[in-house]
Amino acid sequence: MSFKVIKANVLAANDDVAGKIREMLAKTGTYMINIISSPGAGKTSFLEKVGPMLRREKISFIIVTGDCFTSRDAERMDKLKLPVVQINTGNGCHIDAGLIKKSLKGTDLKKTDLVIVENVGNLICPAEFDVGEDAKIAFLSTAEGADKPLKYPLLFRESKLAVINKVDLLKYVDFNLLFCVKNINNINSGLKILKVSCKTGEGLGGFVKWIVSEIRNKKTRKKGVSR
Amino acid sequence: MSFKVIKANVLAANDDVAGKIREMLAKTGTYMINIISSPGAGKTSFLEKVGPMLRREKISFIIVTGDCFTSRDAERMDKLKLPVVQINTGNGCHIDAGLIKKSLKGTDLKKTDLVIVENVGNLICPAEFDVGEDAKIAFLSTAEGADKPLKYPLLFRESKLAVINKVDLLKYVDFNLLFCVKNINNINSGLKILKVSCKTGEGLGGFVKWIVSEIRNKKTRKKGVSR
Repeated sequence: MSFKVIKANVLAANDDVAGKIREMLAKTGTYMINIISSPGAGKTSFLEKVGPMLRREKISFIIVTGDCFTSRDAERMDKLKLPVVQINTGNGCHIDAGLIKKSLKGTDLKKTDLVIVENVGNLICPAEFDVGEDAKIAFLSTAEGADKPLKYPLLFRESKLAVINKVDLLKYVDFNLLFCVKNINNINSGLKILKVSCKTGEGLGGFVKWIVSEIRNKKTRKKGVSR
Repeated sequence: MSFKVIKANVLAANDDVAGKIREMLAKTGTYMINIISSPGAGKTSFLEKVGPMLRREKISFIIVTGDCFTSRDAERMDKLKLPVVQINTGNGCHIDAGLIKKSLKGTDLKKTDLVIVENVGNLICPAEFDVGEDAKIAFLSTAEGADKPLKYPLLFRESKLAVINKVDLLKYVDFNLLFCVKNINNINSGLKILKVSCKTGEGLGGFVKWIVSEIRNKKTRKKGVSR
């Protein structure tokens, strides 16, 4: 029981900081996504492909990537000249709002359309922590099994978009796509679902279209407010 | 800082219970493994295949399977008449020693050679929690990428065996097996590594051989002590 109370306090403190980040992003009209997946679902490969596409759309962005140890993901993105900040959480299982606040220091948000948070590979804890994002993205792969939404419902309940990656593997793995989509719909009927392959590029254009539209909508709302 | 102290207290309380479980298992000569992996690495498929093989070896065992929600894994094993207890952790990200103690109530450990803990799908938090096991097993799949040992070193440091599953997918995914093995060896040079496929059955005999030998060694040590 005592642990639960402690956890509630930790979450409340986190939510305060997240609220401040959200205010800050509202002022500059900067959109923030928080991508959450299992280890190895393909978040970094996704950003390696999507980053250059966003650049072609003239979207200015920064990637904040979290990992327990190593800066392998940041190095991969740095090779492509994608602007990236690495967070190492040690054995910490999620990124919290405080870490995001620190990571954004020195970033000129007025000149930034999009902050992309690539969370630590974990389907459970990151879903509990608001980091001030506009949208959580539940990112899963066909190699993981179609029952993951049922087993980790919080993430799918909290998300605005679900991305199913590695559709190129569908013919080699036992993944029932219809069952997976049905499970996602049962948990969160409003959740948009995109099927992609970071290997073949399939479906990535749909993601770029979605995020560009989200960014524009936020900027329009901001103008509406400041008028 | 305060969160770290709190965490230390939680871990200390957990270790007390884990110590008691370990004493209990020492008395009956029961071996316990704690299998830890990402969501969807194939733990349940592994147990579906290995369970009947253990039975043919006359190993009496019980499976304690953890999940945030649903009892899908337990149902899958129940269909095969494998003895199973389901733990639901809610949004809890790991199984702790207290949950194992509760799960073992009603089990006659004198008649049980092996307790198999199938942890919640998560590479981070479960590695921190001792549940009284003789061996943690780091279980990963070729679909996850070969850099996972580097990113989640604690699990590989704490484990006695690493199982690399889904070797049947090696020709369809970018997984550098040599790099993965090298990374594991760098973290824990004593770690035994098994390559398996739960789909084709490849390598599963090697696991059964290993666990049977571990169980026998523990029983021999127990006899040595009681003499």
